[in-house]
Amino acid sequence: MFEFEIQHRDGRARTATFQTPRGKVQTPVFMPVGTQGTVKGISPQELLDIGSQMVLGNTYHLMLRPGEKLVQAHGGLPGFTAYPGPFLTDSGGFQVMSLGHMRKITEEGVTFKSHIDGSTVILTPERSTEVQEALGADVIMAFDECPPYPAEREYIRGSLERTIRWLERCHAVKTREDQALFAIVQGGVHPDLRQLSLDLTLSYETPGFAIGGLAVGESKEEMYPAVAFTAARLPEGKPRYLMGVGHPEDLVAGIALGVDLFDCVYPTRTGRFGYALTDDGRLNMNSSAPRTQLQPIDGDCDCYACRHYTRAYLAHLIRAEEMLAPRMLSLHNLRYLHRLVERARAAIAAGTFQPWAQAWAERYFRHAVPAWFQAALSAGAKAEAVEQSMVEAPAVS
Amino acid sequence: MFEFEIQHRDGRARTATFQTPRGKVQTPVFMPVGTQGTVKGISPQELLDIGSQMVLGNTYHLMLRPGEKLVQAHGGLPGFTAYPGPFLTDSGGFQVMSLGHMRKITEEGVTFKSHIDGSTVILTPERSTEVQEALGADVIMAFDECPPYPAEREYIRGSLERTIRWLERCHAVKTREDQALFAIVQGGVHPDLRQLSLDLTLSYETPGFAIGGLAVGESKEEMYPAVAFTAARLPEGKPRYLMGVGHPEDLVAGIALGVDLFDCVYPTRTGRFGYALTDDGRLNMNSSAPRTQLQPIDGDCDCYACRHYTRAYLAHLIRAEEMLAPRMLSLHNLRYLHRLVERARAAIAAGTFQPWAQAWAERYFRHAVPAWFQAALSAGAKAEAVEQSMVEAPAVS
Repeated sequence: MFEFEIQHRDGRARTATFQTPRGKVQTPVFMPVGTQGTVKGISPQELLDIGSQMVLGNTYHLMLRPGEKLVQAHGGLPGFTAYPGPFLTDSGGFQVMSLGHMRKITEEGVTFKSHIDGSTVILTPERSTEVQEALGADVIMAFDECPPYPAEREYIRGSLERTIRWLERCHAVKTREDQALFAIVQGGVHPDLRQLSLDLTLSYETPGFAIGGLAVGESKEEMYPAVAFTAARLPEGKPRYLMGVGHPEDLVAGIALGVDLFDCVYPTRTGRFGYALTDDGRLNMNSSAPRTQLQPIDGDCDCYACRHYTRAYLAHLIRAEEMLAPRMLSLHNLRYLHRLVERARAAIAAGTFQPWAQAWAERYFRHAVPAWFQAALSAGAKAEAVEQSMVEAPAVS
Repeated sequence: MFEFEIQHRDGRARTATFQTPRGKVQTPVFMPVGTQGTVKGISPQELLDIGSQMVLGNTYHLMLRPGEKLVQAHGGLPGFTAYPGPFLTDSGGFQVMSLGHMRKITEEGVTFKSHIDGSTVILTPERSTEVQEALGADVIMAFDECPPYPAEREYIRGSLERTIRWLERCHAVKTREDQALFAIVQGGVHPDLRQLSLDLTLSYETPGFAIGGLAVGESKEEMYPAVAFTAARLPEGKPRYLMGVGHPEDLVAGIALGVDLFDCVYPTRTGRFGYALTDDGRLNMNSSAPRTQLQPIDGDCDCYACRHYTRAYLAHLIRAEEMLAPRMLSLHNLRYLHRLVERARAAIAAGTFQPWAQAWAERYFRHAVPAWFQAALSAGAKAEAVEQSMVEAPAVS
């Protein structure tokens, strides 16, 4: 159970199979986000059709509504949502932190006001683990604090040390053997704090590790060195999960640096706003050009929308405020990200990841590949020199 | 082409096959409404999966946005919407009438202000036919006036006579032989005016006839005698279409009276409002009871929602304002109406329509079957006595 078997390596990038109780996941993988027990607008059958392998659920939202006990009465998230494959739940920590002034952090846990009815709720490592056991995902996450950006060094240090004490408490109360508990490495964009968090976290030998605390407001130039530094120091034989990150360019850069799992609301959210992801960048379907274009969003895409609809039709649906518009754009965008990781996996297996990623980026960024992306790609090519080279992780503090 | 072949009769109820250029339609049939080129929230594949046979498009909406020329550039509604089966378009008349003070009727046609940009548009029999030819449905409707309810007898009379002159003009400009033009019988709830409209209309020998001018505000007690009177006097060998009518009880009563085609926005609209159609009546999924019910909406239903979801899950989606809720309730409601006409067809074929309809009504109306429904069912049982009996159509005026 939870075996992680690497199949191909190409620089730091790798493909693997991750065995979960509800099936094997081919990594690298992008996980659609089903915050409230549904990937917005998309049915489980459609998720299977487009190649989704693992779905994320949000502990914070589900514990407040409908409550984890109702989900448990359905046999957990698979029974509740009718998605039959593997699930991952977050710990609720990140969402609670993002409530800002509405919450208070102590050693015990986090006290916050429900966004639904304003009631006072406390989330602790024990409670988060209890809720996640009731939700029944294959992978559950340790309850952590994700400090805001920017934050003082000393705050980040204290926070990551408390996160370790919380990890200890999650471990102590966890009862289900059919769930893997992943620990989360914090430390902001500071290599020494990342190293400290790694030192404290890795001793727990959890079946997988997440890179947390990123994509919270820092620039890509700050974020990717931290990803490179952390990913390179996580155990080779366990899955690495970059939390809450999933724009197309993030997937390619993250894969280059040895990340295996990604999740993000971006594909469905940007779809609801009328944007379509393509190899040529993000297509604004709200603009006037698509209204008369009789080609699909993406001629290479095999999603239902691209096989059946013209851009003109989808642009019409958007203007007419028809529900089918956000549904179809969300479906296409999810399929785009799934295809992107499928292509990355194929390139890694063929030993052509670097040229593939470079060619993808040249087109996607219209020959203006940003320096942060190029640096990530370069760092990813140098698997053997990780420990010596700190180029990818300059000391920011 | 457009052959209408009756297979079974049971009282006035009948089953038939209606041949269209895009395939055979088994009648009685309920047609989902795709006002703006999509059945709200539902994909063409889902329509096929739930047994939809023919879809309605609205000329008024589509001519204003995206404009019929863009639809024509896609090869008509099947290419535009990706629904591969037969279509029917209305003439735009009914929708223009419902604009109320924003429109003006003359012998030439109707002048109105667009609900989208306020521009002045004129819709005439010639223009309606031109637009419907561009939209390319299998069945197109004659441009008619549907008077409001209540209206003066003399107004209804003048209006139905003008509707005949408009029918003549539609006929004169129609060019496509792969489209059937259906005429519309008007006359409000007045038997003598219905008879006048029938006399004037039937001479056109169109491939099908619609019963128009009903479900515009009159009571069921006034409406159903008019349906009974009109349906009984339409040609036996051609399809009869009761326009804009399609609550479950309307389908059963209409079928009893010999109606073959129905359409209504009701199943998708009430679904978006959180209501689910069942043999036990309309289930309010917004109420508190479903929130903890672990059974499907309808254990007898084979739709995706009933095969995969509990009421508790769907009630959660509604409270969470998730897009999947209106999508799944719309899908279920459409499937419910399709199953209802399938069961009616089977009962007609078995010669058991009357007891089936009675049993259905006892459950649906919870043993309080309304008099109008019982009268419609009784009238439908007396096929041979149609001309002598005016019981079902008392002179209202």
